[in-house]
Amino acid sequence: MAKLDIRAVIMAGGSGTRFWPMSRKRVPKQFLPIISARTMIEETALRLLPLIPYRRIYTIAGESHSRNIRRLLPKIPRANVLVEPRARNTAPALILATARIYLENPRAVVLVLPADHLIHDRGVFLKKLEAAAVAASDEEALVTFGIPAESPATGYGYIQCRKTRARRIHDERFYAVQAFKEKPSYEQAAAFLKEGGYFWNSGMFIWRAEVFARSLERFAPDFAPFWIKALDALGKRSRAGLSAVFEEIPSLSIDYALMEKARGVLVCEGDFGWSDVGAWSSLPDIWGRDKNGNSFRGECVAVDSRGALCFSPGKLTALIGVSDLIVVNTRDALLVCRADQDQKVKEVLELLKKQGKTKYL
Amino acid sequence: MAKLDIRAVIMAGGSGTRFWPMSRKRVPKQFLPIISARTMIEETALRLLPLIPYRRIYTIAGESHSRNIRRLLPKIPRANVLVEPRARNTAPALILATARIYLENPRAVVLVLPADHLIHDRGVFLKKLEAAAVAASDEEALVTFGIPAESPATGYGYIQCRKTRARRIHDERFYAVQAFKEKPSYEQAAAFLKEGGYFWNSGMFIWRAEVFARSLERFAPDFAPFWIKALDALGKRSRAGLSAVFEEIPSLSIDYALMEKARGVLVCEGDFGWSDVGAWSSLPDIWGRDKNGNSFRGECVAVDSRGALCFSPGKLTALIGVSDLIVVNTRDALLVCRADQDQKVKEVLELLKKQGKTKYL
Repeated sequence: MAKLDIRAVIMAGGSGTRFWPMSRKRVPKQFLPIISARTMIEETALRLLPLIPYRRIYTIAGESHSRNIRRLLPKIPRANVLVEPRARNTAPALILATARIYLENPRAVVLVLPADHLIHDRGVFLKKLEAAAVAASDEEALVTFGIPAESPATGYGYIQCRKTRARRIHDERFYAVQAFKEKPSYEQAAAFLKEGGYFWNSGMFIWRAEVFARSLERFAPDFAPFWIKALDALGKRSRAGLSAVFEEIPSLSIDYALMEKARGVLVCEGDFGWSDVGAWSSLPDIWGRDKNGNSFRGECVAVDSRGALCFSPGKLTALIGVSDLIVVNTRDALLVCRADQDQKVKEVLELLKKQGKTKYL
Repeated sequence: MAKLDIRAVIMAGGSGTRFWPMSRKRVPKQFLPIISARTMIEETALRLLPLIPYRRIYTIAGESHSRNIRRLLPKIPRANVLVEPRARNTAPALILATARIYLENPRAVVLVLPADHLIHDRGVFLKKLEAAAVAASDEEALVTFGIPAESPATGYGYIQCRKTRARRIHDERFYAVQAFKEKPSYEQAAAFLKEGGYFWNSGMFIWRAEVFARSLERFAPDFAPFWIKALDALGKRSRAGLSAVFEEIPSLSIDYALMEKARGVLVCEGDFGWSDVGAWSSLPDIWGRDKNGNSFRGECVAVDSRGALCFSPGKLTALIGVSDLIVVNTRDALLVCRADQDQKVKEVLELLKKQGKTKYL
């Protein structure tokens, strides 16, 4: 174990609208302090520290997000804050990041993490990471973390496994992947749960840099030439070369480009209390509720109100007679939304765009 | 007509909580721009101008409100901004104001108006005022304006009249008052409506200064000595004298102290579209509603929302899937309230007081 050179790549390129009006085009979820007083990307980095020091943490995002990252995580070496020449989904981003690490140590184990997910049980998480690093290294496998599917959620991809044939590596159970399934319909998801042997796809992966390179060659031949070009551009420190790669490379997710096509992928059971914190309505589960089912951040006074989520930094909120409502009050915009309709935030943003009120986007 | 010296007294001493968080202890309803871009007290003064010039408009309120008045209505002579030594309800305030005018011209006609009421039809209002001034002057009567009771409202006092015996004065109909009725129960109010001959008590009065003095002597002997003392203190410009009057004088409303006891009171039918703008829920009727029944002041974007009132100066509000909701967003506090529960704002204020959050009161 001691000999493993584990490096983390935090993917921070995502732009999201589901936490509007807190999240904006330039300030997506990973840069918001919505699960704690720290931003999600800070939490993601801090969570790794006992296992992976700052100098082995990398981030990958566009230029404007990278500025935020440098500000929030100044202990990550500036050279590790990798900038995508343009947003081209996760496969190009991870080719770039893994190539960068490959040039430093081809045997390094690369842990890939989204910047905006929550993990409740850090102890279990770190234990699993170590085991997954061992598995990725010893078995020369692409390893993914599968979250025990607790409900027929339609917002995640699923991973089908042979659960009957678990392998124990470093005291943890790993399963061979049978198939990746795209986001299902509710009926399909319900069938998956009934059938058993399915995990949610967490978007967290771990592989040795050289194993990733070999896997691209074998299972993603469309991408293999870009790996070579990326290595070349990085070796020459050629921004133009990297830009050229990002102009030509197909814009695909790593799931679609590689994981779904690769053989021998292993799943590590991610039973460490994971949440992708998908929208405002997911926060009461994280923040907790008072005896009336209300969840508050910021000063809030409630009269005859139940099931309200209120996020109001620096401003008093008074609720009277409301139930199952989301109230989010920011410096320049206020959202008041029925709790089960937070996915309609998109419609608000479309209306604002139509009305030319772009400053709120 | 031309010879009548009509003066207006705008009563601005009221403190209200029903428009919290817009209204605060030091900024009650009359100082808020809730019916137009102007504050209600400005609207009240401007409405009078064709008939009564600024130099004949007086206000009566406590010191802190009077500072607001001087700022908002700088054209009212400073000497006309009368300051109550302390708040003692409307009878003491009107004794002070009428005494002040009496010293200038005992034959002057004094029109008393609350600062925080809305009148839709200014033309009709001014015509009625003129007629009422003539009636108050020629008949030497205390005259009150009665609002045609449209619903069994329990928030107003009622005036019972002999509707069958109208008198025409200056082309308008006046009725003799039979009785003043305190705020009724719903059942009583319904019975009043069924019976007919009832008006809502608007709190607007008109009298000649000397008739008021005579009426106090005859019908309110407890107050008559204070009238004399007030005249004396005003004549000597003695602040201490006035303060002494306000220490001793009973704290009663003019209705209770005088109007209910006086004989020969006339009612002028106030069919000029009156509203006391009692709470947030009264505003949609005044502001108007869009096709979804929503009423907005400030930038507002609504998705699948109905019957919402939103007052949000300087800040965007987005509503999603809400109905019959009041949303009021101020600099430091936000209210989100079920439309039919706005009377519970008081409970919020009590909670805030208990929690020591007095800056929001």
